[in-house]
Parts: sequence; structure tokens; C-alpha cells
Amino acid sequence: MTEACARVGIVGLGLIGGSLARALRHAPRPPFVRASSMAADVVRRARAEGVVDVASTDEREALVDVDLVVFATPVSATIALLDRHRALLERVPVLTDVGSVKVPVLGAAGAAGLADRFVGGHPMCGRERSGYDEATPDLFAGARVWLTPSSPSSPVAPVAELWRSVGAEPRETDAATHDRVAAWASHLAQVLASALGAALAGAGIPRDALGPAGRDMTRVAESPPALWTDILMHNRLPVAEALAETRGRLDAFARALDAGDAAALERLLEEASAWAERA
Amino acid sequence: MTEACARVGIVGLGLIGGSLARALRHAPRPPFVRASSMAADVVRRARAEGVVDVASTDEREALVDVDLVVFATPVSATIALLDRHRALLERVPVLTDVGSVKVPVLGAAGAAGLADRFVGGHPMCGRERSGYDEATPDLFAGARVWLTPSSPSSPVAPVAELWRSVGAEPRETDAATHDRVAAWASHLAQVLASALGAALAGAGIPRDALGPAGRDMTRVAESPPALWTDILMHNRLPVAEALAETRGRLDAFARALDAGDAAALERLLEEASAWAERA
Repeated sequence: MTEACARVGIVGLGLIGGSLARALRHAPRPPFVRASSMAADVVRRARAEGVVDVASTDEREALVDVDLVVFATPVSATIALLDRHRALLERVPVLTDVGSVKVPVLGAAGAAGLADRFVGGHPMCGRERSGYDEATPDLFAGARVWLTPSSPSSPVAPVAELWRSVGAEPRETDAATHDRVAAWASHLAQVLASALGAALAGAGIPRDALGPAGRDMTRVAESPPALWTDILMHNRLPVAEALAETRGRLDAFARALDAGDAAALERLLEEASAWAERA
Repeated sequence: MTEACARVGIVGLGLIGGSLARALRHAPRPPFVRASSMAADVVRRARAEGVVDVASTDEREALVDVDLVVFATPVSATIALLDRHRALLERVPVLTDVGSVKVPVLGAAGAAGLADRFVGGHPMCGRERSGYDEATPDLFAGARVWLTPSSPSSPVAPVAELWRSVGAEPRETDAATHDRVAAWASHLAQVLASALGAALAGAGIPRDALGPAGRDMTRVAESPPALWTDILMHNRLPVAEALAETRGRLDAFARALDAGDAAALERLLEEASAWAERA
């Protein structure tokens, strides 16, 4: 790790923060890591397991004497922390986060006067299980990480270096484009999986009755509801738009089934299979 | 293999028929296998590779001098073959199929006067790729196979034995229950994956932009459209019912997103996650 991220602060030691701390231990020239978690037992274990150098339940311990801070917290928490600790954060040269929505986080960084040092981040490697217990150093291997700089002078290079050092593939975009693509590529999938899971629950179909496709499609139905409520609330309009388009296709399926229109069914199935084969 | 299935006929050498032929070669006391495929090159290769003992493009070659016939053909084809070859099939003691819908196939068996020897079958191990090239002897390992006897005297035991010999787990049910559960557990997933794929195509989101959840949820979007049109047309009402329930949940998601109702979103997500954790 170069000087730009020789000392890293990580706020939050859940699936993402915990995995990042573990992965950084295996990085070339591992950084000195200061971390915080609201859970006292996680702090104790992260220290005892040598996953971090300094750990505390007080998030300020992860914000001082560091070159770069990663907020590995839910979107709402990151927004609140940027406001609460603006004075401390003005002394950290590089700030980033891992939230699944970027426009509101960049807005909060701007409102706190931190735009010149903030680069939004979103590693696309979530899992249905969350928390420190699920953290694993190889979580980011080959994963795309979207970076959305807050201003033209935001320090993208050290954030990209951090992610490359744990095997991820950083790529830059703007926050609005990110949020629209994330709605389609990730948030919509959560809504569909949860709607399917809820409908299966209502029909009394247990998960172990599902075939391979049904199992794949409900894998993320298990995801933490509070975390996902937060994500969906912060990306409401792009998700609503993607959902409306998808409901349109489902309506077309329903009409074709009602009418017994085999040609219409086959056209819908073909449109999807042509798309799937292209990529 | 006992005498009841010492000589097996397999009509169709696609993913399921081809995998069954390959798997039977590894069974304890492998049966003598006669098979047919409409594709001349598949017939040639299955013979050359020693996957079957006799192979022909004429399906009648798979229906004579055998103790048990497996129709590994699409539902519509199975229905047509039961009618076309009723005279030959009256001399085969045990008939079964692998179709994803059972009520119409049992109807066809009954109409052909073959109810006393027919047992519907449905191995729940489909894949998004089809055809002989995808066939693999371990396709059925641990897979549930639903068996739906056509009449109280239908020979369930030899069909169950056949599937157990390739590592599958046969379980008996009635055709109407099967078709309702299959609509929920399998066919609905195909409709959702295809609707999502079609909507993503319309939005210009390529498959490689998807996160892990999006990738899982569109895996089967690649499935063969003609095969799935056939399945959905034969199970229209149960699929339409399951789809209507799921659309109801998606409508609730859409309303909650429009209204910015975090509590409603969390309730929907929780309903699904409670279901997912139960099984």
C-alpha cells in the first residue's frame, strides 16, 4: 500500500467492513487498520483475532490518525456520520463508503463540506447473510466496485488502490448513473426475490420444495430487511421505475397465459433469452 | 437393476434423456438401453460413445423389446407419442415421462388406454442449457423426482427403482397437486426470470453489469423458449394463479416505494425473509 492509504480507518465491521479488514491483512504491504463497531463483542473479537490494529465501539477511534476512512455502514448511518463528525473528517484526506446507493451519500458529503475528499464506493458482492461472522477475506476477489467521486478534485486514485489491493476491480461512474444501474442490476432483484418469497409463503410452499431455478431466485429473500428498507428508501425513484417496467412484462405474461397465446409467450421468453445469450 | 427394468427404452436424448442414458451406464447392474432421437448426429454419437446399446431416429426402436419406456420429450411431444404409438405401447409393462407438467400427460395416457401402465415422472433438475451436449451422468444426484401414477394399479415401484439407481429421490404425489406445486416452485421462477431479462434488455442493462443477486435471478432467462412455451401452455391456470399472487406483492412494493412508506417496505421484506429462514 502506498503512503496515501498506509493508515486506514474502517467504520463498521459487518459483512463488508469485516471482510475488508480481513482482506487488507493479506494485501501487499498491509495498512495499519483502525476500526469501529457498535457491537462490543465484534470489537473484542476483531482485536483478539488480529484482524485490526485498533478497534473501539466509539467510531471516532476509526476517524483519527488515518489517511483514508471507509464507511462500511448502512446508507442512513453513513449520512448521519458524515454530518456528525464533519470536524474530525476535515482532517482525513480521503473518505469513501460502501453503500448501495450513491446520490444521497454524495449529497450528505457535500452538505458537510467534504465533497473535495469524498469518493463514493459500491462493491458489488453482497450476500444474503450479513454481519462480522460472515466476513471473509476473499469477498472482493474479482468483484466490480463502482467509484463515484463527489467533485472533480476528489481523490479517486487512493480509493481505487485500496480496492485493487483486495482483488476488486474499481470502475468510475457518476452517482446518478450508478443509482439507476444499481436499481436495475441489484435492487430490483431484491424486490423480485422478496415478492416471490412472500407469495410462496402465502401459498404455503416451503423453500425445500423449490427446483433449482426457484432456489436461485429466492436466495436473497433472506437478506436483512432493515438494511434493504434503507437501500430501497434511498433509491426509491429508480427502483420504482425499474419495477414498473418489469411489472409491465409480467402483465404481458399474465395476458398471454389468460388468452392461451403461445406465440406471445414465446416472444416474451425469446426476448429474455436473446438478452441472456448476448452477454 | 431388477427384471422389471432390465431393458429400458428412452425416447429423446436431450439434457434429461441423454443424462439418464449416461447415468444408467453407472447404475448397479446397468440395463440394456434402446434410445431414439430426432437428431441423426445425436444418434450416431450416443452409439459411438457407447452411451446406449441401440439408437435410432425412429422412436419405435425405443418402444419394442423393452420392460420400461421413458419419454424424455417435451410435454406436447409425449402427448402426441402416447396417442401415435398406443398399439406398440400396450406391450410395454411400464411407461413413464419426465415432463414438467403432469395432468395433461396423464390425460393423454388415459385417452390412449394406457393408464394402467403409466406413471408420470418429473425430475427437478432442469438447467438453463438443453440438449445432448449438456447431458451429464450426475444430473440426478440428490434430485427430487415426482411420480404421479395414472391409476391405482400403475407400476410405481419399477419407475422409483429406475430413478434411485441414478441417485435421484423419487416421491409420489397426485398430478393436480404436482402441477400446482410445480407452477409455484419452478414455472413461476421461469416467468419472473424472463420478465426480468426482458425488462433489463429494454433498459439496455447488459448481463455482465448485474450483481450476484441479479445474476442468480436471470440464470434461467437463457432457457429454451420453445420448451418453456410448451410447459407454460400446459400449466396455464396454476401458473397464472401463482403469477397473480406474486404480482399482488409487487404491487404492494410499488405502492410502498411511491408513498415512501418504509414500514410497509420492511414488512414485505420481513415476510419473505421469515419464509426463507424457516426452510
